[in-house]
Amino acid sequence: MKKRTIKKVLIANRGVPAVRIMHTCRDRKIPTTAVYSTPDRLAYHVFMADTAVHIGEAPPAESYLNMDKMIDAALMSGSDVIHPGWGFLAENEEFAQKVIDAGIVWVGPSPKVIRMMGDKIEAKLIAQKANVPTIPGLNDVTDISQIKKWMKTEKVAFPIMIKASSGGGGKGMVKVENEDQLQQAFAQARSEAKKAFGDEKILVEKYIERGRHIEVQIVADEHGNVVHLFERECTLQRRNQKIIEEAPSPTLDEDLRQEICFTAVRLMREIGYTTAGTVEFIFDSSTKKYYFLEVNTRLQVEHGVTELITGLDIVGIMLDVVMGKKLPFKQTDIRPNRWALEVRLNAEDPKTFSPSFGTITRLEIPHGPGVRIATGVYEGADIPPYYDSLFMLLMTAGADREDAVRTMDRALSRNLRVEGIKTLAPLLLSIIRHPSFISGEFSTRFIEEHMNELISMFKEKGSEDEALKVARYVAEISALGPQKWM
Amino acid sequence: MKKRTIKKVLIANRGVPAVRIMHTCRDRKIPTTAVYSTPDRLAYHVFMADTAVHIGEAPPAESYLNMDKMIDAALMSGSDVIHPGWGFLAENEEFAQKVIDAGIVWVGPSPKVIRMMGDKIEAKLIAQKANVPTIPGLNDVTDISQIKKWMKTEKVAFPIMIKASSGGGGKGMVKVENEDQLQQAFAQARSEAKKAFGDEKILVEKYIERGRHIEVQIVADEHGNVVHLFERECTLQRRNQKIIEEAPSPTLDEDLRQEICFTAVRLMREIGYTTAGTVEFIFDSSTKKYYFLEVNTRLQVEHGVTELITGLDIVGIMLDVVMGKKLPFKQTDIRPNRWALEVRLNAEDPKTFSPSFGTITRLEIPHGPGVRIATGVYEGADIPPYYDSLFMLLMTAGADREDAVRTMDRALSRNLRVEGIKTLAPLLLSIIRHPSFISGEFSTRFIEEHMNELISMFKEKGSEDEALKVARYVAEISALGPQKWM
Repeated sequence: MKKRTIKKVLIANRGVPAVRIMHTCRDRKIPTTAVYSTPDRLAYHVFMADTAVHIGEAPPAESYLNMDKMIDAALMSGSDVIHPGWGFLAENEEFAQKVIDAGIVWVGPSPKVIRMMGDKIEAKLIAQKANVPTIPGLNDVTDISQIKKWMKTEKVAFPIMIKASSGGGGKGMVKVENEDQLQQAFAQARSEAKKAFGDEKILVEKYIERGRHIEVQIVADEHGNVVHLFERECTLQRRNQKIIEEAPSPTLDEDLRQEICFTAVRLMREIGYTTAGTVEFIFDSSTKKYYFLEVNTRLQVEHGVTELITGLDIVGIMLDVVMGKKLPFKQTDIRPNRWALEVRLNAEDPKTFSPSFGTITRLEIPHGPGVRIATGVYEGADIPPYYDSLFMLLMTAGADREDAVRTMDRALSRNLRVEGIKTLAPLLLSIIRHPSFISGEFSTRFIEEHMNELISMFKEKGSEDEALKVARYVAEISALGPQKWM
Repeated sequence: MKKRTIKKVLIANRGVPAVRIMHTCRDRKIPTTAVYSTPDRLAYHVFMADTAVHIGEAPPAESYLNMDKMIDAALMSGSDVIHPGWGFLAENEEFAQKVIDAGIVWVGPSPKVIRMMGDKIEAKLIAQKANVPTIPGLNDVTDISQIKKWMKTEKVAFPIMIKASSGGGGKGMVKVENEDQLQQAFAQARSEAKKAFGDEKILVEKYIERGRHIEVQIVADEHGNVVHLFERECTLQRRNQKIIEEAPSPTLDEDLRQEICFTAVRLMREIGYTTAGTVEFIFDSSTKKYYFLEVNTRLQVEHGVTELITGLDIVGIMLDVVMGKKLPFKQTDIRPNRWALEVRLNAEDPKTFSPSFGTITRLEIPHGPGVRIATGVYEGADIPPYYDSLFMLLMTAGADREDAVRTMDRALSRNLRVEGIKTLAPLLLSIIRHPSFISGEFSTRFIEEHMNELISMFKEKGSEDEALKVARYVAEISALGPQKWM
């Protein structure tokens, strides 16, 4: 028999996802357990939780990736539910199984579904069987001669993409521009795959030039109800990792939107998906064709933009579903009527993307109408060098795209202040002010192709105004002396 | 001919309203001018503006209430529009006229409308003429014998309310419980009226026991279009000043809601109202009758809850209207589908309401799903003793009332941290956790009647948990030493 109530939720994560999930738990008065590594002992997610358990030292393998310690922490703290967030163990079917075997509720799809979708080759075969369009390619490649033969037979031209079958987050993906690069690229993808995922299975695919990355958010219960919450546009990436997302996509027309969304529903229904997940597609703007890319079997970083346009709480839906509840809405109830944008505030040098860590000495968080923030830090918190560089998400919503972008411009240029570390803020601001972004016409290569131009926009009017203003203040303080009324 | 574009907006205000209005201007890329008194020279609104003009010393009469300095600041800074915000000169018809005479666009209704509604007696007569229900009472009282005679003739029993005709913000309002108090109360109201408004005109009214304060937000253009944006419940007050507001009202049924809202539309149409304004009513829960109270001829503190349920930007609508634009929607387009709540974070002792001022040494602003903040301060900012104690508004929105309240509980108890000054936060949290608030059954006297009970709730579980947690952190820092990776 299904449990009907949750005693306590352990969040097997840190930073932004941990705090995000705690917000929903807190809203529902469900107690939470945080886990933390030694450098995270004063982290925001520890402070936000009702209970906090120290699970080990800094290296992820000793703490956030250590399955047994995670399960011990849940049992020890009286937590009967584990939410994995995103990253770390979120898409690890072995962990999901261990959680279930320990008598704890797993907030995610079944281990079987995670395994099927975790293997890119298997996922692609399942999609093909379900008549979902896939990128022309070749599976289970062990030698470059197979690639050459396939290219010849199928008349495929360079560039092509070599991918680790177990890959994710941009790792184990290598683009090959010409035959000279083939040997080295193949070796690189294989070694990255082995190192990152312990599995050197490789596939190759045609490279979609000027592709756009479009994904469909799905929620599904254990009673056969599968509903899409429309699409997100996640084309703006650096090093194959998204940094700006929005909903809806500015490139799809209404017919295509419906088709892609219902294709995703069909696939997720076919594989028996439950809780929340995402079907990712590559969209070729020139031919208007879309191709299945992969299924993310977890909550995604960018779920907030979908929440903003639908008014739903996706984390709350996940918790309800694993308690055996039915989705409280039908497909026709979902009628988004706003536009939402998200930028990822990574602790990185905005010119080189090299990680920046240290103490946040000053933090002013944007606020005001149309702004939503998800933060994993507070002023005075440390960004340790061991983990993901994402420390804050800035989201804005408006009546239309222009409105959402204007509010993001305000949040980034006027309301945000982070000192002590470098952030992507200047780059993010340049992107949303760039004519290609404003027109909605860009591809996954936009950032690499325009990097110099974007950097040249960093120093535009605005930052200098601020400097002048500060100078004026300092002058005034000197002239007027300290405040007098105390 | 009407101007079609705005060059620059001067905001004749400080703190929360100034920053709020700058947000909309910034979204529309309209430059802004801040004005500031000497103690406000480092205030947040000064930092947020494109231009800042020093207008005088601390006392409001020398700066924020000084009409000529305000107009000079606009002319000097090239500002062609003045938005008065709320408080200070916002409902001063003389200022509105001076602005217009200086060739500057005034963001508000005409000086004539401000004058008519500013006089409570005149406003009441206009409402009566328009067949809007008003509280039984007597106008133009100069002597208590008139009051006694009226009570006898009309069979009115104590308590009654004595009001300054020019009053507002709770000033010049005295409740009279019995005949013994009458003489002194009359003298007090008259002297307050003279002191605060320079006008000792007095009216008396029946006191509505267990009344609720319900107001209707109106927007209107210069082409005869008047639309209501539904009602707000503003019953929770301390010393006749609102501290918690919500939309919609939990007490009105659908028929009454429609009736009150359209009564407000009719009145505002009758007086030729333009831009944004509010019609306030007292609602008697026991008889289900409502009575006209007054019209606020300006943007109100609590406009944000209406924005949250309608998705509209009321400040933006005001700017469009004064540029001669038509409202871009019809009444039937306004279909609120959420619930929103606002609490006023005043810098006050939560037990005594005595003002608290000084430097904000630590500020963590709530964030996360469903939260909107309007702040007039930053960490390190000063709260000077000269002005309104309101320094931040916390708003939450959800699918229903329970949802919005849960999110407010999270924001107040978990995400907010203000050090250096006292705030109303503990009281606000006690109120939203009180059974009467949760059931939606309360009157304007709720806070005074339950003050001791509310104070006893301050020390409940939660704050102690935090204290224990901090102790644990400190112990861990001592044991582990400073972070090691730097």
